[in-house]
Amino acid sequence: MTTFAIGVDLGGTNLRIAAVDEAGNLISKTTLETEVSRGRDAVIDELCRATEQTREKYRGHADLCGIGVGVPGIIDSETGRLVESPNLPGWSDYDVKGDIERRLGTTVILDNDANVAALGEQWLGAGRGAETMCLYTLGTGVGAGIVLEGKICRGWNGMAGELGHCNVEPVGYPCKCGSHGCLEQYASATAVVRLAREGLATGAATELRSLAPAALDSLAIYQAAMRGDAVAKAVFNRVGQTLGLGIANVINAMNFPLFVIGGGVSSAWDAFAPALFAEVRLRSYVYAATTAEDGSGKGGRKRPTVIKRATLGGDGGLFGAARLAMMESATRNA
Amino acid sequence: MTTFAIGVDLGGTNLRIAAVDEAGNLISKTTLETEVSRGRDAVIDELCRATEQTREKYRGHADLCGIGVGVPGIIDSETGRLVESPNLPGWSDYDVKGDIERRLGTTVILDNDANVAALGEQWLGAGRGAETMCLYTLGTGVGAGIVLEGKICRGWNGMAGELGHCNVEPVGYPCKCGSHGCLEQYASATAVVRLAREGLATGAATELRSLAPAALDSLAIYQAAMRGDAVAKAVFNRVGQTLGLGIANVINAMNFPLFVIGGGVSSAWDAFAPALFAEVRLRSYVYAATTAEDGSGKGGRKRPTVIKRATLGGDGGLFGAARLAMMESATRNA
Repeated sequence: MTTFAIGVDLGGTNLRIAAVDEAGNLISKTTLETEVSRGRDAVIDELCRATEQTREKYRGHADLCGIGVGVPGIIDSETGRLVESPNLPGWSDYDVKGDIERRLGTTVILDNDANVAALGEQWLGAGRGAETMCLYTLGTGVGAGIVLEGKICRGWNGMAGELGHCNVEPVGYPCKCGSHGCLEQYASATAVVRLAREGLATGAATELRSLAPAALDSLAIYQAAMRGDAVAKAVFNRVGQTLGLGIANVINAMNFPLFVIGGGVSSAWDAFAPALFAEVRLRSYVYAATTAEDGSGKGGRKRPTVIKRATLGGDGGLFGAARLAMMESATRNA
Repeated sequence: MTTFAIGVDLGGTNLRIAAVDEAGNLISKTTLETEVSRGRDAVIDELCRATEQTREKYRGHADLCGIGVGVPGIIDSETGRLVESPNLPGWSDYDVKGDIERRLGTTVILDNDANVAALGEQWLGAGRGAETMCLYTLGTGVGAGIVLEGKICRGWNGMAGELGHCNVEPVGYPCKCGSHGCLEQYASATAVVRLAREGLATGAATELRSLAPAALDSLAIYQAAMRGDAVAKAVFNRVGQTLGLGIANVINAMNFPLFVIGGGVSSAWDAFAPALFAEVRLRSYVYAATTAEDGSGKGGRKRPTVIKRATLGGDGGLFGAARLAMMESATRNA
């Protein structure tokens, strides 16, 4: 009998449930709307109902080894509670793991959505074959996850990988975390739109001015940048420069081999990558000493630092959540 | 028979050799001047001669399990060479390990001086009992070393822990690494003197003005700060703020439990610590969520993030180099 795990990706917009086998094949996938406005209980009800359905579907045909759930927010590994979840207002200090377990009558393993997405990319995506890597997810916010020697890096309180809140501009734009100048305020889709508005406000000539306010999104700004619009190009230069500064700091600190960039804004790679690589080279002599301009090892070295795009798109978190459940099961049975 | 290791600390000013037993007792210690001006060969000659003397002294009385050497500079783990050593001009791309091994006729283990100092603090100093910690050494430059689950964190190329080159001011003071605004340019003894000179240049009233240029060192500036001199206080506020920003970024990324501050400038702890803690709290909500104002765990948590002074003074590197040799020997014999 095939062994499989259920991966759940609880997003602020969608709730997705997948059955994945040990080789990484997607057996089934369910996508539902996350009706955040109906409140926490309704969302968790829906999550448990859909998970239960997936479980029932394969009962007798395949062995379920575990259920993994990716949650947008910081989970305190000591208390098991959600510390903060900007995309799930009112969920703070909520025992999400305990609640799901009570309803399903089984243990589940829970982690931050960016952490499980990093594990997914490391298992089946851009990080395949790498033991250690760091994923940045440039979406509404900037999420990040670190896989260290094959395992999610959680740190002392389960809060490692908050790279979206690393500082790139000490006197910078205010962040809802209480600081100002966090990477998230320069490299997220939200930031791209704000930076474009700031560019418009200078009165500079730009095709963005012809767009209706609601049409000014990161895709439209990217397309303008690729057509050579100076204001739009400056926006993505800033995205690349700040992301490059953030990555350079992590390289200097941890000398990780691989950085993978995912999330919606990563589709604008062509627009921000040149500024990103220039900044990493300027800010990290660890990078500059080991990595040639073409990305290969410098001076005959076999170990350059690689920075590249994610390959699993929005499914990284689903695969990663399933993988996490498989790893947990293997540890439990060892 | 007692088992011991030899630890060597090759500094830009002093060359020190110690025999340390497995319990961490210092059996003997030799301090020589590092005559850098006489050239690399003369320094390595002297190092090998003094190491040989220590080895001979205990032959037949104690078992030597290994020799560890801390070197100021970045060692490429792939090539085994010194990539850069600001304090040892002309030593770049030098096979220091191979050269010492050929002269001594035995294997030695080599690491960056800040890495071995971190291991020393973790073994016998402020990090005793901690499996993971990060040491900043605020000296002529800012060195750093990370101990991860009991071992020196080296990273992909052996260059991890370059926290002195993490950026704290994107449009900042030029650094010899090629970037500008590195932490080293704000929190080293060299930076303290430069910041004081910048304060003097504004024309502000300060007792520092009465000092002869040669007497304007970090100790004199610290003493002025503690007497309430505004210019001197501003210098150490800047030291604390930038170090706090650098530490906050590492907490957000890695959620390490312990940060230890050593080196000469750490003697000015009272002058910079308030700004440091305020900045870490502002910039890291991982810190703010877990750590109360008095440094204990917040909201009943047992796991605050701790930031404190080193306790081994200049001997951390010696003990750490010896410890490294012991760990290497244990791995070899396992």
